[in-house]
Amino acid sequence: ALAAPAIAQSNPKITWRMTSSFPKSLDTIYGGAEVLSKMLSEATHGNFQIQVFAAGELVPGLQAADAVTAGTVEAAHTVCYYFWGKDPTWALGSDVPFALNARGRNAWQYHGGGIDLFNTFLAKQGLFGLPGGNTGTQMGGWFRKEINTVEDLKGLKMRIGGFAGKVMEKLGLVPQQLAGGDVYPALEKGTIDAAEWVGPYDDEKLGFYKVAPYYYYPGFWEGGPTVHFLFSKEKYEALPAAYKSLLHTACQAEDADMLQKYDYLNTKAIKSLVANGAKLKPFSQEILSACFDAANKTYDEMMASNADFKTIWESIVAFRKEAYLWDQVAEYNFDTFMMIQQRAGKL
Amino acid sequence: ALAAPAIAQSNPKITWRMTSSFPKSLDTIYGGAEVLSKMLSEATHGNFQIQVFAAGELVPGLQAADAVTAGTVEAAHTVCYYFWGKDPTWALGSDVPFALNARGRNAWQYHGGGIDLFNTFLAKQGLFGLPGGNTGTQMGGWFRKEINTVEDLKGLKMRIGGFAGKVMEKLGLVPQQLAGGDVYPALEKGTIDAAEWVGPYDDEKLGFYKVAPYYYYPGFWEGGPTVHFLFSKEKYEALPAAYKSLLHTACQAEDADMLQKYDYLNTKAIKSLVANGAKLKPFSQEILSACFDAANKTYDEMMASNADFKTIWESIVAFRKEAYLWDQVAEYNFDTFMMIQQRAGKL
Repeated sequence: ALAAPAIAQSNPKITWRMTSSFPKSLDTIYGGAEVLSKMLSEATHGNFQIQVFAAGELVPGLQAADAVTAGTVEAAHTVCYYFWGKDPTWALGSDVPFALNARGRNAWQYHGGGIDLFNTFLAKQGLFGLPGGNTGTQMGGWFRKEINTVEDLKGLKMRIGGFAGKVMEKLGLVPQQLAGGDVYPALEKGTIDAAEWVGPYDDEKLGFYKVAPYYYYPGFWEGGPTVHFLFSKEKYEALPAAYKSLLHTACQAEDADMLQKYDYLNTKAIKSLVANGAKLKPFSQEILSACFDAANKTYDEMMASNADFKTIWESIVAFRKEAYLWDQVAEYNFDTFMMIQQRAGKL
Repeated sequence: ALAAPAIAQSNPKITWRMTSSFPKSLDTIYGGAEVLSKMLSEATHGNFQIQVFAAGELVPGLQAADAVTAGTVEAAHTVCYYFWGKDPTWALGSDVPFALNARGRNAWQYHGGGIDLFNTFLAKQGLFGLPGGNTGTQMGGWFRKEINTVEDLKGLKMRIGGFAGKVMEKLGLVPQQLAGGDVYPALEKGTIDAAEWVGPYDDEKLGFYKVAPYYYYPGFWEGGPTVHFLFSKEKYEALPAAYKSLLHTACQAEDADMLQKYDYLNTKAIKSLVANGAKLKPFSQEILSACFDAANKTYDEMMASNADFKTIWESIVAFRKEAYLWDQVAEYNFDTFMMIQQRAGKL
């Protein structure tokens, strides 16, 4: 007689609202929240529901984290560097220039204490966060003309995300904040000279190759950016143990799934972009080195005045050194050999 | 009055036994099955239980798949290339020489139809499989002396896994099958000249560096091997929908988790191995090229007589070509720049 109520109680009906920072047109990154929602609902007979709302439906995209802190919604799907202006520590939860690639970031997050460290920061805003997607190394964006030297960056008006823009300002670049839909006309008219977005699959839909054909790589400010699920800490902690465990499992699965999806779709998109006229160009070593130095100066400034930033960045840096030592052994040499075969037409 | 029985029925008690092909001492790879078991149990209030048994406890490690087909156990955690002798198509489910790195394999598996394709093969043995871990690119193993040319491979007695051994035989290498515990004494006595195992973290425990100090890379026969969960197809299909969905979610999470764990632990182990005397050596381009050609000849032979092998290998090859085109753009250039900084002591 006691068994049935116990079971019923253990799968309570819970409905959360999740505001996404992305439009539905970005099916990979917006779609990640739908993937999570489906996993949770299916595993609980529809009892643990997360309703996903696109950016702007309930809350503007860039206010997603604030909306969870304020209790307007229970959850958000966002990229934490959007909020770096409030505190640069936010950016460390997603990505900053010259940090880690996706595998390195995940190793650090899941097994190097990264998730817990970032949550000590998020707790101060009443939030609990879990990784909820990754794009892999992004592209460096679309440029109306070639840039070869650091001199070419001076005065360049570029649509570029907040924290990376702050670093690039040190080299004379003029960062521009534009909403997604405004970028194409600005590039076409020449109001801006360049714009970075994500990578081939997402970029192709926006058609930038038609008006700014030089497609630079790598997007060194996003070597492996984490997209986050942010939850109300109070609501998360009040979850039954089974739902809490399921939430961790499902977020880790969805986190992997988004990268897997990007890794598949980008292979198709890069080919069709090039076929349509995109001109692939690597950033010069001069530019990369100058940006690396500018980034390090920025980190030093931030560490001097921000203890949270210092703690988390030092943890990333300690792992980065080891990760890029090991990476250059088996993985890099396997990939290099395979790329040589690819270029020789042997694959 | 109807609600309680309906809920009770939807979380039925299910207990499966899973035989692992690995000993408990391989905590990363054996531990993956324990991670899955915990995820399933916690999310279902202990109602969906998978009991994990180490290799040999119920079933010898190399009979794991057969034991599921025969109905001795409901599930196995194994590497499918162990069974290539029955049909080489098995090897394609895990890894073969010069295939894909871990991200490429996952992109192909989860979004390029790879999981479904391999399951059309597994269905013939009454099995349903899901990826359940990855080690990343493995090391090429431990050698008692340096090998520089293809000539040096001739007559070399090497402990190397079945399918890769078959490829290497074409170059005169003499593959040896030895159980884990027998490898060290055989290397010490010189009964064998070389042995491949996994990567730094697992290899370090076995102490090979003391008796065969040349540690070659990359393990080109395992660029990104998938460890599998194999389930009885009949038992899998009879699962309630909620458990079936949860099983997919948890396997995808655990699959990611194992790679994340290896990526973290290997960074520590490679440093301590080198500090203890391991001598890191890259395989020469001559050796890699000869092995690449030998592998392609092997694939041609197998495709000529095995339709399942042909279908799956052609699907991998089609994606491999695209994956290694895209990889060499953003990701590779980001990593290369970071490795240059690492070598310059700037990270």
